[in-house]
Amino acid sequence: MDDDDAVRRWEHRGQLPLITASLLYLAAYTLTVLDQDASPAWRLAWSMTMFVTWALFAADYLVRLALSRRRWTFVRGHWLDVIVLVLPALRPLALVRYLYRRRRRRRSPLLSLEGQVMAYSGLTALLLGFVGALSVYRAERGAREATIENFGDALWWVCVTLSTTGYGDVAPVTFHGRLVGVLLMSVGVGLIGAVVGVFSSWLVQSFRRREEDDAGGGGGGP
Amino acid sequence: MDDDDAVRRWEHRGQLPLITASLLYLAAYTLTVLDQDASPAWRLAWSMTMFVTWALFAADYLVRLALSRRRWTFVRGHWLDVIVLVLPALRPLALVRYLYRRRRRRRSPLLSLEGQVMAYSGLTALLLGFVGALSVYRAERGAREATIENFGDALWWVCVTLSTTGYGDVAPVTFHGRLVGVLLMSVGVGLIGAVVGVFSSWLVQSFRRREEDDAGGGGGGP
Amino acid sequence: MDDDDAVRRWEHRGQLPLITASLLYLAAYTLTVLDQDASPAWRLAWSMTMFVTWALFAADYLVRLALSRRRWTFVRGHWLDVIVLVLPALRPLALVRYLYRRRRRRRSPLLSLEGQVMAYSGLTALLLGFVGALSVYRAERGAREATIENFGDALWWVCVTLSTTGYGDVAPVTFHGRLVGVLLMSVGVGLIGAVVGVFSSWLVQSFRRREEDDAGGGGGGP
Amino acid sequence: MDDDDAVRRWEHRGQLPLITASLLYLAAYTLTVLDQDASPAWRLAWSMTMFVTWALFAADYLVRLALSRRRWTFVRGHWLDVIVLVLPALRPLALVRYLYRRRRRRRSPLLSLEGQVMAYSGLTALLLGFVGALSVYRAERGAREATIENFGDALWWVCVTLSTTGYGDVAPVTFHGRLVGVLLMSVGVGLIGAVVGVFSSWLVQSFRRREEDDAGGGGGGP
Repeated sequence: MDDDDAVRRWEHRGQLPLITASLLYLAAYTLTVLDQDASPAWRLAWSMTMFVTWALFAADYLVRLALSRRRWTFVRGHWLDVIVLVLPALRPLALVRYLYRRRRRRRSPLLSLEGQVMAYSGLTALLLGFVGALSVYRAERGAREATIENFGDALWWVCVTLSTTGYGDVAPVTFHGRLVGVLLMSVGVGLIGAVVGVFSSWLVQSFRRREEDDAGGGGGGP
Repeated sequence: MDDDDAVRRWEHRGQLPLITASLLYLAAYTLTVLDQDASPAWRLAWSMTMFVTWALFAADYLVRLALSRRRWTFVRGHWLDVIVLVLPALRPLALVRYLYRRRRRRRSPLLSLEGQVMAYSGLTALLLGFVGALSVYRAERGAREATIENFGDALWWVCVTLSTTGYGDVAPVTFHGRLVGVLLMSVGVGLIGAVVGVFSSWLVQSFRRREEDDAGGGGGGP
Repeated sequence: MDDDDAVRRWEHRGQLPLITASLLYLAAYTLTVLDQDASPAWRLAWSMTMFVTWALFAADYLVRLALSRRRWTFVRGHWLDVIVLVLPALRPLALVRYLYRRRRRRRSPLLSLEGQVMAYSGLTALLLGFVGALSVYRAERGAREATIENFGDALWWVCVTLSTTGYGDVAPVTFHGRLVGVLLMSVGVGLIGAVVGVFSSWLVQSFRRREEDDAGGGGGGP
Repeated sequence: MDDDDAVRRWEHRGQLPLITASLLYLAAYTLTVLDQDASPAWRLAWSMTMFVTWALFAADYLVRLALSRRRWTFVRGHWLDVIVLVLPALRPLALVRYLYRRRRRRRSPLLSLEGQVMAYSGLTALLLGFVGALSVYRAERGAREATIENFGDALWWVCVTLSTTGYGDVAPVTFHGRLVGVLLMSVGVGLIGAVVGVFSSWLVQSFRRREEDDAGGGGGGP
């Protein structure tokens, strides 16, 4: 175990506020991108929400770092937190992490190991895709010769990208849009590949188990 | 075993009617989509067929649920049946399931474990692709700037999508067509990935077995 | 072992003629497709070559079937031969098979098991790609709005298809061209996936072996 | 171990000069491609740098071959060096190799086996992608109907190709550009596939380890 007792206590108490902050950030970011016609007051409120929740995450990281006795081990074991601080749009990923940890605490093994990996990777890919669609839509909006013209196009582009199909009917043309695309590809392709790989081995095991069940059980058929 | 004796007896008796119902539904759906010039009477007949077969599947699920002693285990173990009830176009997938079960009953191990997984996944992907082509053709027909102009285009699009090649020469432009695309990608990519993964490991095993055969057998060559 | 002595003797004697026939067929098919301006006499010669070599393969299959004591086992174990008879353009695949068998006879384990799978799958994919490029070029030549305008385009399309990249700058538009595409995707994607999967596990094993070598050997560095 | 003591001593001494030569070659090649407006004197300097560093690598290979006692084993074990000599643009790959060897010498197991494979494959893919972008940009510059119009487009094309997404908004149209594409696909797809495959199995192991940690450790939760 690389976490100390103080860190664990802090993390346990901070769970609920941080999940709330994650959801608030996601909501504020979504509204900032999608509700272009909002009044300046609303837009300011969303910006403030984003800043405050960002500060909360930064403070949480620093406190945990300060509480930790083995600093270097902590930094290496929590690199995802740093990425999430640098690229605020990826913050909702922390939500998956906290949800996952919370579920583990409760010791309710609802899913097999393969199921856990698929659920975790799939949920991360889903959140990443939603944030990617928001970011690419923000970057492409108003660009000349843009093919991503509305949020529906952006969502369709994300699905086409994560599955590596890539029709090319919609594709980013701006620098920022393409940067989002590169990030989405590098992380998303790995996650989807992991889901597919684990699904493949789960399927084989599932068939093997059924075969053994069949061989073992006294069949009820005529 | 999560199935009780009563459920098993019911399933055994219901097999043939349900396979027939699956095929009838598939035929009615195919005709509804492809034969646009049919008389209203025929179209009504197909709609009725689709409704009645749907009701049959729903009744079968409810009876099995009622007969089952462990309800929750039954629901968790038969989630595919629920999906098939909610998305009627996916119903033919149940056909693969029933065919598979029937084959298992007969205890004829015609295929190795890898062969079974490949056959099952491949057949599911094939059926899914056919239904996907029908659905996307129905959604895109008559849409402005549609690139999927006939059923042949739709079949080509399905092949290009399932293999994740994605040329983009044909691609859905309507909301419903893209929804079909997203479903096809998420399920199909996993299934095809599973087929490829299992094929890869089967190939390695096949080569290993041959090598051992060669080492063991006294070769007939000069 | 599913082959009898008589079959083995026949196969051993027939090897060289059949390799020659394979190469002749491939050469004749290549010339038929690429050399459009040849005189009718030459074109007839190539057609005759293709027919005679086809007849040779058919005769070889029938003789082996007749010699075999377990017919059904033979048919099931040699399904590739049947496919190759039905789809003459795939015949060169038999070449890979015979080359592979010949190498095995000589018992020269030049390659590891992973290397063999990669070489076999890769060579098959290469031959398949070449034949696919010829076939798609023949199908698309002269089609309206064709994007595959010369044999170079066809080769580029094959590479883009087998790697599942699918830019869509060139794509078949005719029925026969798309049929070639579907065949290429279904077989090629599996073969390439197998190569990648085996390469992946070979890489991990290669790194593990090096690590063990390092740990075991007394290092020469300062 | 296939290396002798003399080879090892040579390799140890040659490390630093060869890393420097690799970096110099990469810098000179980058400048040659990207700085089109440089004076002839500079362009000559870069050409000279490329030639001298190439000669250095050739000399290094020959000396090592001469020192090696088992020539054939050496040639087979260092085929990457030969490829790098024939295709100078791939030379920076040797950089990854040397960096990797240097790290191994130091015996600092900073990364797990899976981490090593991912880092090595990922870094190779990154370098390959950068060189590929340079080469494709050089080939496409000035071509009629080229869609890759600047180096940014070339980098975007490389990302789209390596992830096998392949939108087709940018794609090479010249013979040399497509040759770069085929090389990038054949090597890159394998490397990225290896990264994804190893990531997938690493993820499963990571989840398993956490589960065992949880089961073993006395939880701090209430």
